[in-house]
Amino acid sequence: MFITIEGMDGSGKTTALQKVKEHLESLNYKVIMTREPGGVQISEKIRDLILSKSGEGMEPWTEALLFIAARKEHLEKVIKPNLEKGYIVISDRFMDSTTAYQGGARGLGVDYLNNLQKTILKGFLPDLTLYFKLSFEEAEKRLSNRSYEKNRLDEEGKKFKEDVKNAFEELAKKEPQRIKVIDAEKTPEEVFIQTKEVILEKIKLWKK
Amino acid sequence: MFITIEGMDGSGKTTALQKVKEHLESLNYKVIMTREPGGVQISEKIRDLILSKSGEGMEPWTEALLFIAARKEHLEKVIKPNLEKGYIVISDRFMDSTTAYQGGARGLGVDYLNNLQKTILKGFLPDLTLYFKLSFEEAEKRLSNRSYEKNRLDEEGKKFKEDVKNAFEELAKKEPQRIKVIDAEKTPEEVFIQTKEVILEKIKLWKK
Repeated sequence: MFITIEGMDGSGKTTALQKVKEHLESLNYKVIMTREPGGVQISEKIRDLILSKSGEGMEPWTEALLFIAARKEHLEKVIKPNLEKGYIVISDRFMDSTTAYQGGARGLGVDYLNNLQKTILKGFLPDLTLYFKLSFEEAEKRLSNRSYEKNRLDEEGKKFKEDVKNAFEELAKKEPQRIKVIDAEKTPEEVFIQTKEVILEKIKLWKK
Repeated sequence: MFITIEGMDGSGKTTALQKVKEHLESLNYKVIMTREPGGVQISEKIRDLILSKSGEGMEPWTEALLFIAARKEHLEKVIKPNLEKGYIVISDRFMDSTTAYQGGARGLGVDYLNNLQKTILKGFLPDLTLYFKLSFEEAEKRLSNRSYEKNRLDEEGKKFKEDVKNAFEELAKKEPQRIKVIDAEKTPEEVFIQTKEVILEKIKLWKK
C-alpha cells in the first residue's frame, strides 16, 4: 500500500507520520517512510537545485519539471521496489504538492499538472492521500516557533500559500476516494489519532 | 530570428555554425550562438546532472523532464531577451532533440513530447530549424577521429542512434515549413554553403 501525505509546512504532518509508523510497526506491518523532493541520489541532487537560493528567479515550469523529474526517479527506484517487497510506503509529499504549488499557486494549471503527472507516472497513483488542512495563520504561528533554515518556497508570502491551500482543497474535492482531509488545527495527539484511523480503515479495506 | 540546429553528434553542425556566424557578422547581422542543454546557470547545472556518469540508469522520463526544464530556463533567460535586443539567436540543439532522443529513441512518444514542449514553451517555436542528416556509419567514423570525453548519451549503441535519426526525419516530414534538411554527408565546405543559403533565404523572407 502506498500512502502520501500532503499539506503546508507547519501542518504537523511529519510528526504525525512518525507516530503512525511506530504504531503500524507495533502491529507488525513493515513500513518505509520517504520524502519528496528527494529519496534517491539523483532526486536529492535535483532537490538541491530547486530549493537552494541559487534557484531564485527560476521559471515556474522549470521548477515544476524538476519536481516531476525527481518524482519519477523516486517512484521507480524507491517506492515501487519497496511496495513489491511488501512494505507499506509512506511518502511525505508526492504528486499533489506539484499540482498545488506549481499548478495552483504558480498558475500553471491544476488540471494540466494533475493530468501530466498521471501520464508520466503511468497512472500509478497513491492508494491513499492524507491532506493536512490548516489555516495560513496557524501554519505561520507554528513555523515561527521552529528554528530551521528556510528554503526558497518557505519564503513565499500569504497569497502564494493561500493559493496552495485552495488548490489542495480543489483536489480533495475532485478525488474524494483517494484524498482524505485531516483537521490539522487539532492537537498533535488528536491529529495522530485521526491519521491512524484513516490509515487503518484503508488497510482493512485493502486486505479484504 | 531564432534558428536551431539539430542532428547527431559528428554531423558537422557545430563547425558549420561557427562559419555561418562569421559570415552573418560580415553582413552586419548581430548573432549570438548558444547551446543546449545549458546556456544559463541553472541549465548548466541540469546539464551536469543529465550527462554525468552518475546519471546512469536514470529513467527516460527523468531525462526528458530535465532537458525540458533546462530548455525553459534557457528560452526565457537567454533566447527571448536576445531576440528582443535584435540578435539572430542560433541554438545548437533545442526542442527537437528531446523529441527525437527521448520521444523517439527512448520510446516516450514523438508526438507526445512534441506537443508537451509546445505547451510548456507556450508555442514559441524556432523560426527555422536545420536538421543535419548523416548516416550512422559516417557519424561514427567522424566521432572516432575526435578526442573528447564521451558523455552518457554518446555511448548509446547503433539501434538508439538509428531511432534518433528516424525520429528527426519523421519530424522534418511533419513540419517541412520550419525544419529544413541539410545533407551532412558532404564536405565541410559544401555543408557550410547549404547552411548559409538556407539561413539567408529565411532572412530574406523574414525581412519582407
